[in-house]
Amino acid sequence: MTQVVCFGELMLRLSPPGQERFFQTPTLRSWFGGSEANVAVGLAHLGSPSRYITRLPENAVGDAALAALRAEGVDTRDMVRGGPRLGIYYVESGADIRPMRVVYDRAGSAFSQIDEGAVDWTVALKDAAWLHLSGITPALGEGPARAALAAAKAARKLHVRVSLDLNFRPALWAGRDPRPLVEPLARASDLLIGNPGAFAAMLGVATPAGAGDQLVRDASKRVHDTLGCAHVAVTRRDVKSASHHGWNACLYDAATDGFYVSRRYDVHVVDRVGGGDSFAAGLLHALRTGHTPASALEFATAASALKLTIPGDFNRVSSEEVHRLLDTMT
Amino acid sequence: MTQVVCFGELMLRLSPPGQERFFQTPTLRSWFGGSEANVAVGLAHLGSPSRYITRLPENAVGDAALAALRAEGVDTRDMVRGGPRLGIYYVESGADIRPMRVVYDRAGSAFSQIDEGAVDWTVALKDAAWLHLSGITPALGEGPARAALAAAKAARKLHVRVSLDLNFRPALWAGRDPRPLVEPLARASDLLIGNPGAFAAMLGVATPAGAGDQLVRDASKRVHDTLGCAHVAVTRRDVKSASHHGWNACLYDAATDGFYVSRRYDVHVVDRVGGGDSFAAGLLHALRTGHTPASALEFATAASALKLTIPGDFNRVSSEEVHRLLDTMT
Amino acid sequence: MTQVVCFGELMLRLSPPGQERFFQTPTLRSWFGGSEANVAVGLAHLGSPSRYITRLPENAVGDAALAALRAEGVDTRDMVRGGPRLGIYYVESGADIRPMRVVYDRAGSAFSQIDEGAVDWTVALKDAAWLHLSGITPALGEGPARAALAAAKAARKLHVRVSLDLNFRPALWAGRDPRPLVEPLARASDLLIGNPGAFAAMLGVATPAGAGDQLVRDASKRVHDTLGCAHVAVTRRDVKSASHHGWNACLYDAATDGFYVSRRYDVHVVDRVGGGDSFAAGLLHALRTGHTPASALEFATAASALKLTIPGDFNRVSSEEVHRLLDTMT
Amino acid sequence: MTQVVCFGELMLRLSPPGQERFFQTPTLRSWFGGSEANVAVGLAHLGSPSRYITRLPENAVGDAALAALRAEGVDTRDMVRGGPRLGIYYVESGADIRPMRVVYDRAGSAFSQIDEGAVDWTVALKDAAWLHLSGITPALGEGPARAALAAAKAARKLHVRVSLDLNFRPALWAGRDPRPLVEPLARASDLLIGNPGAFAAMLGVATPAGAGDQLVRDASKRVHDTLGCAHVAVTRRDVKSASHHGWNACLYDAATDGFYVSRRYDVHVVDRVGGGDSFAAGLLHALRTGHTPASALEFATAASALKLTIPGDFNRVSSEEVHRLLDTMT
Amino acid sequence: MTQVVCFGELMLRLSPPGQERFFQTPTLRSWFGGSEANVAVGLAHLGSPSRYITRLPENAVGDAALAALRAEGVDTRDMVRGGPRLGIYYVESGADIRPMRVVYDRAGSAFSQIDEGAVDWTVALKDAAWLHLSGITPALGEGPARAALAAAKAARKLHVRVSLDLNFRPALWAGRDPRPLVEPLARASDLLIGNPGAFAAMLGVATPAGAGDQLVRDASKRVHDTLGCAHVAVTRRDVKSASHHGWNACLYDAATDGFYVSRRYDVHVVDRVGGGDSFAAGLLHALRTGHTPASALEFATAASALKLTIPGDFNRVSSEEVHRLLDTMT
Amino acid sequence: MTQVVCFGELMLRLSPPGQERFFQTPTLRSWFGGSEANVAVGLAHLGSPSRYITRLPENAVGDAALAALRAEGVDTRDMVRGGPRLGIYYVESGADIRPMRVVYDRAGSAFSQIDEGAVDWTVALKDAAWLHLSGITPALGEGPARAALAAAKAARKLHVRVSLDLNFRPALWAGRDPRPLVEPLARASDLLIGNPGAFAAMLGVATPAGAGDQLVRDASKRVHDTLGCAHVAVTRRDVKSASHHGWNACLYDAATDGFYVSRRYDVHVVDRVGGGDSFAAGLLHALRTGHTPASALEFATAASALKLTIPGDFNRVSSEEVHRLLDTMT
Repeated sequence: MTQVVCFGELMLRLSPPGQERFFQTPTLRSWFGGSEANVAVGLAHLGSPSRYITRLPENAVGDAALAALRAEGVDTRDMVRGGPRLGIYYVESGADIRPMRVVYDRAGSAFSQIDEGAVDWTVALKDAAWLHLSGITPALGEGPARAALAAAKAARKLHVRVSLDLNFRPALWAGRDPRPLVEPLARASDLLIGNPGAFAAMLGVATPAGAGDQLVRDASKRVHDTLGCAHVAVTRRDVKSASHHGWNACLYDAATDGFYVSRRYDVHVVDRVGGGDSFAAGLLHALRTGHTPASALEFATAASALKLTIPGDFNRVSSEEVHRLLDTMT
Repeated sequence: MTQVVCFGELMLRLSPPGQERFFQTPTLRSWFGGSEANVAVGLAHLGSPSRYITRLPENAVGDAALAALRAEGVDTRDMVRGGPRLGIYYVESGADIRPMRVVYDRAGSAFSQIDEGAVDWTVALKDAAWLHLSGITPALGEGPARAALAAAKAARKLHVRVSLDLNFRPALWAGRDPRPLVEPLARASDLLIGNPGAFAAMLGVATPAGAGDQLVRDASKRVHDTLGCAHVAVTRRDVKSASHHGWNACLYDAATDGFYVSRRYDVHVVDRVGGGDSFAAGLLHALRTGHTPASALEFATAASALKLTIPGDFNRVSSEEVHRLLDTMT
Repeated sequence: MTQVVCFGELMLRLSPPGQERFFQTPTLRSWFGGSEANVAVGLAHLGSPSRYITRLPENAVGDAALAALRAEGVDTRDMVRGGPRLGIYYVESGADIRPMRVVYDRAGSAFSQIDEGAVDWTVALKDAAWLHLSGITPALGEGPARAALAAAKAARKLHVRVSLDLNFRPALWAGRDPRPLVEPLARASDLLIGNPGAFAAMLGVATPAGAGDQLVRDASKRVHDTLGCAHVAVTRRDVKSASHHGWNACLYDAATDGFYVSRRYDVHVVDRVGGGDSFAAGLLHALRTGHTPASALEFATAASALKLTIPGDFNRVSSEEVHRLLDTMT
Repeated sequence: MTQVVCFGELMLRLSPPGQERFFQTPTLRSWFGGSEANVAVGLAHLGSPSRYITRLPENAVGDAALAALRAEGVDTRDMVRGGPRLGIYYVESGADIRPMRVVYDRAGSAFSQIDEGAVDWTVALKDAAWLHLSGITPALGEGPARAALAAAKAARKLHVRVSLDLNFRPALWAGRDPRPLVEPLARASDLLIGNPGAFAAMLGVATPAGAGDQLVRDASKRVHDTLGCAHVAVTRRDVKSASHHGWNACLYDAATDGFYVSRRYDVHVVDRVGGGDSFAAGLLHALRTGHTPASALEFATAASALKLTIPGDFNRVSSEEVHRLLDTMT
Repeated sequence: MTQVVCFGELMLRLSPPGQERFFQTPTLRSWFGGSEANVAVGLAHLGSPSRYITRLPENAVGDAALAALRAEGVDTRDMVRGGPRLGIYYVESGADIRPMRVVYDRAGSAFSQIDEGAVDWTVALKDAAWLHLSGITPALGEGPARAALAAAKAARKLHVRVSLDLNFRPALWAGRDPRPLVEPLARASDLLIGNPGAFAAMLGVATPAGAGDQLVRDASKRVHDTLGCAHVAVTRRDVKSASHHGWNACLYDAATDGFYVSRRYDVHVVDRVGGGDSFAAGLLHALRTGHTPASALEFATAASALKLTIPGDFNRVSSEEVHRLLDTMT
Repeated sequence: MTQVVCFGELMLRLSPPGQERFFQTPTLRSWFGGSEANVAVGLAHLGSPSRYITRLPENAVGDAALAALRAEGVDTRDMVRGGPRLGIYYVESGADIRPMRVVYDRAGSAFSQIDEGAVDWTVALKDAAWLHLSGITPALGEGPARAALAAAKAARKLHVRVSLDLNFRPALWAGRDPRPLVEPLARASDLLIGNPGAFAAMLGVATPAGAGDQLVRDASKRVHDTLGCAHVAVTRRDVKSASHHGWNACLYDAATDGFYVSRRYDVHVVDRVGGGDSFAAGLLHALRTGHTPASALEFATAASALKLTIPGDFNRVSSEEVHRLLDTMT
């Protein structure tokens, strides 16, 4: 019972080189990424065995996506193949006062058309310690929404713990209320992660903008009281510019009624994509390997601060590197 | 009455560098291309004013596509903007005995969802000498099919000549008979272009494989007799390997009942995409500028042989360069 | 009467990649740029129709320059072709305490040998709302100097407004007094733009180094009183290092005797070339579209602050992006 | 009993771009490759499960090598980690009359210092159908030589079939007679692969230069009679220039006393490295999946002819692509 | 008395990557090259000490040119610095039926404005065995023409042998008769090199197109009889396409009245620039090191055939590599 | 007596592009570097003639290393050739809180196996003003250690001044005490350079962490009193992050008992490798050219601050650029 099984959509990311605007030069850098895949890869680099399940088209793009995951050490044995295409997102990094720009082209993707029963969760979760989901999946279509709920239910039945990163993407929910789809997933979760905006928009637990630690604690506790999650983590990104972010997080631990606030990192950002996912990976890794809540939070925050300095969506950072940063900071 | 107005779908093409297989390296080279756009660009480089109409999404990818066309000197004043995405095709060039490989990701494109009435053809064809269409457009959806037919009809009414490149793409017609959609366009055309396979599959005029000139002449004439096109051009690509093509073409001129066979080029291929389109551009340019049928055919064949040596879909070749090749060959 | 017509020299810029010194690697990145062309391109991206006139050699370098301008959406219909070569400037970006380094190779350029009568200004300015010139042109030779003056005079006669960016380049004026050539252009201008050094060197209106707002106001007013320009804009770049600039500007509006000082941006610089030009483009766009002087100044300063984050000479920034920055800043 | 387990040395390959000479530009393209790894990767792409065992240093270079193998779908579960460094070879591709140039820097590599007992072959060969070795390994040092022999003996005991590619590298054997080290491996092999020079130098079975098919058959039979290998394959590369190779192979099948000569390919070479290894992979795949000897030989020869068109050491070719080539050729 | 001193103009060459047309991508590859510099570099790689003298501007481009020469092992101690700019030539390689395209931008270069007395030839030729000049230099201006003649005269006085490569460039002589400027240099030369067209245009010794060996021998002898050169070499390039050249050469040796015709190479061309220069370097190297005329000719032809496979103007080929090719060919 | 002769090991450095982690992309940037070579190159760029002696393998990598040094203007006439390989170090630059990562692969290098007598120091030091060594060399093996000592002794005998940069690399001394090998070199030195950690580890002169100027002065004086060096320089790098260093230095001048502290630079780091070496080059240049100790120290500190902004190991900075920075700072 050791692997973390992650389930969600993978996409092809295309970016112009360096700080150029889209198509200033005809060269694009390709990456693969997706919230749950980023978690799986981050876990593998930290030393936690992880598996990733998505649906990839049976073509050269799907093959390359699969190879990219395997290269990072992620177990891909349950991969579902089929469907028309891999979704794409174009990312322009921005620079300083010029913000990052993203163009999504994800409609009609293989994953959005996944069948509820495409994955046999009893088999897929057999050796799992955790199942990791995100709030993106239920927004992508009926198939994904049902598959995610089926996964969460199977996990509960199999005593596999569930973590859910809310990952609120307003564009995906345009005109829809996320709550009916997200709340059941949250109720099934032992660990719930989100930023204040996500808690407000997806679960109706709002904190005022710039809320202090006490208010965040209250909100976290409210989440626990309502939904029953044992751990509630709140990430706080302070975007000073495209190149400069403040970054810290809080963790509410219901077992002890403890609330912890991590140290804050001011990072010169190389690539902001995947920061939150690397926090989730760090937290899962630390909880899996017996850290205390306070220590797990610091570990996860440091891991994700390092991610901001790494090109691409994946957090290619070892536990040793995270500990070295934590040591430096002390 | 001087411009050639081209109407069809534009796509983003993504290719690995040199002769690499897909995603051997994370860098992709982007190009924009599409059969009718390639014709418009080829015309502009040859010195013939051209306009191109398609539907581009209102995002950075659509903007870049527009910029690429403008850079080549194509008039884009009637561009339609809107829709979800630009279609993509991934092209791996192959090498020698390893054939070119293409992965299409064009479903749900902005153009495939164009409204029949998106373009006011009376306005768009006002200054036009020719309207150029291809057999790809009717395969893409009801909107494109209707818009193409509307364009052809408007052209006839306005005494704008129509050229149609059959461009048979089996994957687009899977399980459908192209003839009901293509024949009306062909009937409206003054110039019809295709390879023997396209004439067979789309118009039911078959020639046996490896048919000699006489049989091609007979077939061309049959096309004229049935559909009334004044000029019927047949291109013949002899794919010896991914890197080596034989290339020539024939032209039937109904006015004189003349049939012409061009010289044959054996070309070391740099990029095979757009070869047929550059033939269409060459023929339109030559016909527009008063070449005799025989001379127009030689010009078009030489222009498209040169295309095979140029990276990308566009034929960036001037009339002077075509003439220099024709002179060298004599 | 809507286009802004820009007239001046275009050059090929060659730069080593990233922060490398010249020729550390054999690869060069090419760009096209020139003060007035940068204004035309900036206007097009902001949504103001612009035209650009220069003289380009009849060769592949001239063709590429033309394509680059068209790609950005600039109208090039009056382009003059001919002459021996396109001028070149080599730019090494520098980094932090290592300043930018520029090697000019512009002697003998096609534009420097332009004939006074190469452009028929009555035709060229027919639909123009503004004519934009810079203080570089009169320094380049007799032909350019006369052509610029002819343009300014024609504009006045046609009630086309004139803007002049002083753009003082000491190397171009070595041993010569700019005033006799520049003052007539300034007198013909409705809008005069420059930094304090340019006003001192080219028009004899000096302000002490580090002059406060009041002294700048006095100087601006003095410029207006002497030369009659309705708007006088002063840009202030505070070069803290190659990578860090402070940037703000002032505008004197004679009609209301108003003087405005913009907010100041502290920018991590990606590419400093074209910063002043993007200010001119922003100001012309804002004045054209009915901003108040205060609002136009803020718009122009924000637009040019964004330019400093964009590689190349051109400011590929939309009005929406400028407004988003202004909103963020409030 | 399905995997093919490959054991040998992996190296980092560094090449200048395209057809440049070493260090004409400061950029190098990195690849990982090694004879037995190439076989494992080739098998994986063809659809045969494969495992690869080598010794990789515990550093970022070793990690990257591991990732590269995983990306291709090779099972790396038995990887040995440790030792000082990964060997390197610099490859300049050459062009036409300028031959490929290789600089080896493999001394002191992690694999050359592997302990005889580093791999528990009883475990490693448990699920194996085949063990694949090459004649390079015994040349690299005592540890590799003993480990290879131990592997071969364990395989025989476990009824795992053994294939040996002689891979004669004169530089590795300078001043030494390969026979005492290679013959025991050959005796343990069911399948023996080599070119005529390797059979002569390593096993003392010489055929005259340019020997016809009959002489090759005689030699193959002699190999079988002496060493007992059930299959003896002889590859024949006819290096016409750096860019043009003729390629075919023969197979002697002892069970039927059959001797087969494949068709010959004349290939425009993109990357010649790994050609022989891809033949071995093709042959193992075909034998594993029930091809007749004649068909297996044609499959292997076609697979390796395709390799010559693919950049890098690995043969990223699917069985479908091999069959398509065979179909085209008929 | 061992060095070969080469004197002439150096230029910056700029090329698009691979087989792209000019400015299809914004990246340019820079090289330095020039006929006499190419000879000096070729000599250094073959193992003959060489020195190169030109005039380079005192800027970063001139510095980079100097560094490039030093890197190749050329002695640059007598370099003249000063003047406005380094000439440029843009080279598009072409491919197969699309020929190479060159745009020259060399007017106003530092070298073209060199003073007759800029080099003290008595000092510069002190240790020289040979002085190498080309027919390009007298075309570049009065200063270069006089300096070249002064060099040749000083060489004769100091018993330094002189070689002259005619290098006929029609564009440089437009409207001028080269003979009055070139003949005095030829008369001072011990070795004269050119293709048939150059002998005709510059010295009035015509051979009919496609002349056989006997006619070339007669012409060579005529050159010797008229001008007194001890060795007359004629190079024959047979341009079948941009990618395929036939290449051979002849040598007339007056001392023995011997005439030699080299073997012919059919080369797949990677970069055709500098082919003739590498022949000159090969011939000088071979004559310097005591080859017989026949052997020197074969060496020079093989060296220059290899050049055609090497990117850039310089022939980075060692004597060993030339001998290896000669051995292969036998 | 003007050259500075530098002796030590040269290595090939391989780095991923930009801020990527190792092997995120298959492209590597190659550089050559080594402490003493960096000093020689820095001197050449500053205008001081320098020579560099190391041992390079007789292969393409050694040739390229030699070319790289020559390109920078370093005299390589005494180069020793031979031995198995050039050492390699892989450098990942890091970014902000992610530190630089280095993987060394230098075992078995040509230089580490140099013979004590490989260089005839009487000849090599004939025209030398200074001999420059570093504390790396004695750690590399017996041959290098003896050769360095022989060089230092020969220098003393020939009245050539000696400078020694301690360059403490813990990994090279693992388990060994540097003092017995380094102290004799230090005793022979006129100029001793190091950071506080190096003085402590290699010479037993410790200063407490974060020692103030007075303590550093005391330590410097103690070094002088014990070892007799006329100048003792202490560099102080304050690594705030991978991208941000504070940098200053002190100099003790025994002749006047003067102690100088330079101004401090806060630098946004582009490439930190070679910073100390460029300080040594700056100091040697300034001392050679008659600066006062205080002025020499400021010059050296400014030169090395500039190095931190330059990609690669070499400090390609002219004296003019250093003076311009010093002027700016005043």
